[in-house]
Amino acid sequence: MNKQQLVAQIKKKKSFLCVGLDTDINKIPAFLTEKFENPILEFNKRIIDATKDYCVAYKPNIAFYECMGPSGWETLKATLEYIPKDIFTIADAKRGDIGNTANMYAKTFYETYNFDSVTVAPYMGSDSVLPFLEFKDKWTILLALTSNDGALDFQFENLKDGQPLYKKVLRTSKEWGSDENMMYVVGATKSESLKEIREIIPNHFLLVPGVGAQGGSLAEVCKFGLNDDIGLLINSSRGIIYASQGEGYAAAAGLAAKAIQIEMAGFIQ
Amino acid sequence: MNKQQLVAQIKKKKSFLCVGLDTDINKIPAFLTEKFENPILEFNKRIIDATKDYCVAYKPNIAFYECMGPSGWETLKATLEYIPKDIFTIADAKRGDIGNTANMYAKTFYETYNFDSVTVAPYMGSDSVLPFLEFKDKWTILLALTSNDGALDFQFENLKDGQPLYKKVLRTSKEWGSDENMMYVVGATKSESLKEIREIIPNHFLLVPGVGAQGGSLAEVCKFGLNDDIGLLINSSRGIIYASQGEGYAAAAGLAAKAIQIEMAGFIQ
Repeated sequence: MNKQQLVAQIKKKKSFLCVGLDTDINKIPAFLTEKFENPILEFNKRIIDATKDYCVAYKPNIAFYECMGPSGWETLKATLEYIPKDIFTIADAKRGDIGNTANMYAKTFYETYNFDSVTVAPYMGSDSVLPFLEFKDKWTILLALTSNDGALDFQFENLKDGQPLYKKVLRTSKEWGSDENMMYVVGATKSESLKEIREIIPNHFLLVPGVGAQGGSLAEVCKFGLNDDIGLLINSSRGIIYASQGEGYAAAAGLAAKAIQIEMAGFIQ
Repeated sequence: MNKQQLVAQIKKKKSFLCVGLDTDINKIPAFLTEKFENPILEFNKRIIDATKDYCVAYKPNIAFYECMGPSGWETLKATLEYIPKDIFTIADAKRGDIGNTANMYAKTFYETYNFDSVTVAPYMGSDSVLPFLEFKDKWTILLALTSNDGALDFQFENLKDGQPLYKKVLRTSKEWGSDENMMYVVGATKSESLKEIREIIPNHFLLVPGVGAQGGSLAEVCKFGLNDDIGLLINSSRGIIYASQGEGYAAAAGLAAKAIQIEMAGFIQ
C-alpha cells in the first residue's frame, strides 16, 4: 500500500486507529480454546470482523506467534490473509541485522507473509535498514522513541552536540528513505517530544503506541503529531482486543474501537 | 549450558570456534536440492557431522530460516535437535522488545527451540533485556559493537561525557546481569576497540563475528580479547559452510573448521 492509498483510507473511515493483534492463548476467552482447533485464529478473525470498519491498520506482534513454534506462523499467515486488502498491515517484529540478513528479514515479512510494513531497530545503522527500503510500496517503520522506561537508558542520552540519541536517529535515518517508504515508532508518553520530532520529520507517518493502556492522551498526540496527511497511526492493543474476556469479547472490541474512531473523527478535516 | 560447562568444552576441544549456520537454499550444492526433500536440513546435518569436533558453538542465523515460512522453523528445530548436547547453541535473532513481548521472544528461543542463548538488540534499554535474563542457564548476547559500516551511524557517536554509545551500552547493561548470563557481540574489525572493551567487561564472553570473511585477524582478536576463561567465541559462517560448493562441501567445511581450531589451540593454555 502506498502513502496516497493509506491517506485515502484514513479520510474515508475517519480513523487513524491501528489495532494491535497481541493475541495470547492465556488471555483469550476460555470457550475459544474449548471449541476451536485454532483458537488464536478464531479470536483474530472475530476481532477483525468486529473492528475492521473502525481501523485502518492491524499490527500483529510477531513474538506472540513466533513463540508458538511453526504453527504460530501458520496462524499469522492465515490471520494476514483474513485482513481486508484495503487495511494497512504492520509486522511488529523489530528486526535489525545487516546486508543479506536484513534482506532475508525483509523478504520474510514483505513476501513470505505479504505485510505492508515491518518495524525495524536502528542500532546497527544504515546497512541494517537500506535493504528493507528496496521493496516497492512496502514500508520500514523505524524505532525512534519508545514509550517504555528503558527508553531512558540510551534513547535519551545526549550526544556531544547536545541532541539526544533518538533525534540523531531521526536526522540520520530520514536521509535513507523518504516519507513514502519510512515511518517512525514514536511513543506518546511525552507529548512535548512529539512537537520536537515534527520539526525534524514534518511529513513522515508516526506509529504511536502508548495511547490508552500506556497512558498517552489522544488529544495531546493529535495536537503535536497531526500533519496535512494526518500522519499518525495510533495503536491500541489490549484496550481493544481484551475489552471483555467473555463470549461477547468481539462485540466489546468493536465498541472499544468505534469509541476511539469517533474521537479520532473529530481531529480529521 | 552454564559458564563452567562452556569453558570446559573449550579447554577439552582446544577451540573457541562458533560455526554460523547461515544456510541459504541458493548457495548450497545443487545435488542436495535434487536428491533430498529437505535440502537445508541435510546440508546442516552434514556440516554438523563434519565440524562438531572442531567447534564449541553453532549459530543459526534466524532470518535464513524465518524467510522460508513455517517450514523453515521446522528445519531450524530439526537442526537444533541434531546438534550434540555438549555444544553451545546461539539463536542469532537480534530481537528487542519490551516486557511481556521480550518474555515471549525469550520463551521462543529458550523453550520452544531450546537454544542456550539468543542475540538481543539494546536500543529499547533495560526492560527489553531483563526478561531474557530470568531463564536459568540461558544466555543473552547483547549487541554492543558490530563490524558493519553502519556501526558508524550510532554506535560510535560520542556522548556528552566523551564516551561512544557502544561503551555506554556496555557500562549500563553489564549491571543488568552477570558474566554468567550475558555475553556481548563485538565486531573484530577494530582490534584496538577490543582492548578498551576488555577494560569495561574483563570477564564476559564476547561473540566475535568478522574474523575471516569480514577481515579480522585471529591473533589480533586473541591478543586483546582473551581472558582467564578464554572469554571468546569466534564465529565463522561462509568461510566454513561454503568452503566448497561441490559434493565434498562437508569435508571441505570440516577441513576449514579444523584449520581454525588448530590455530586456536595455539592460544589456549
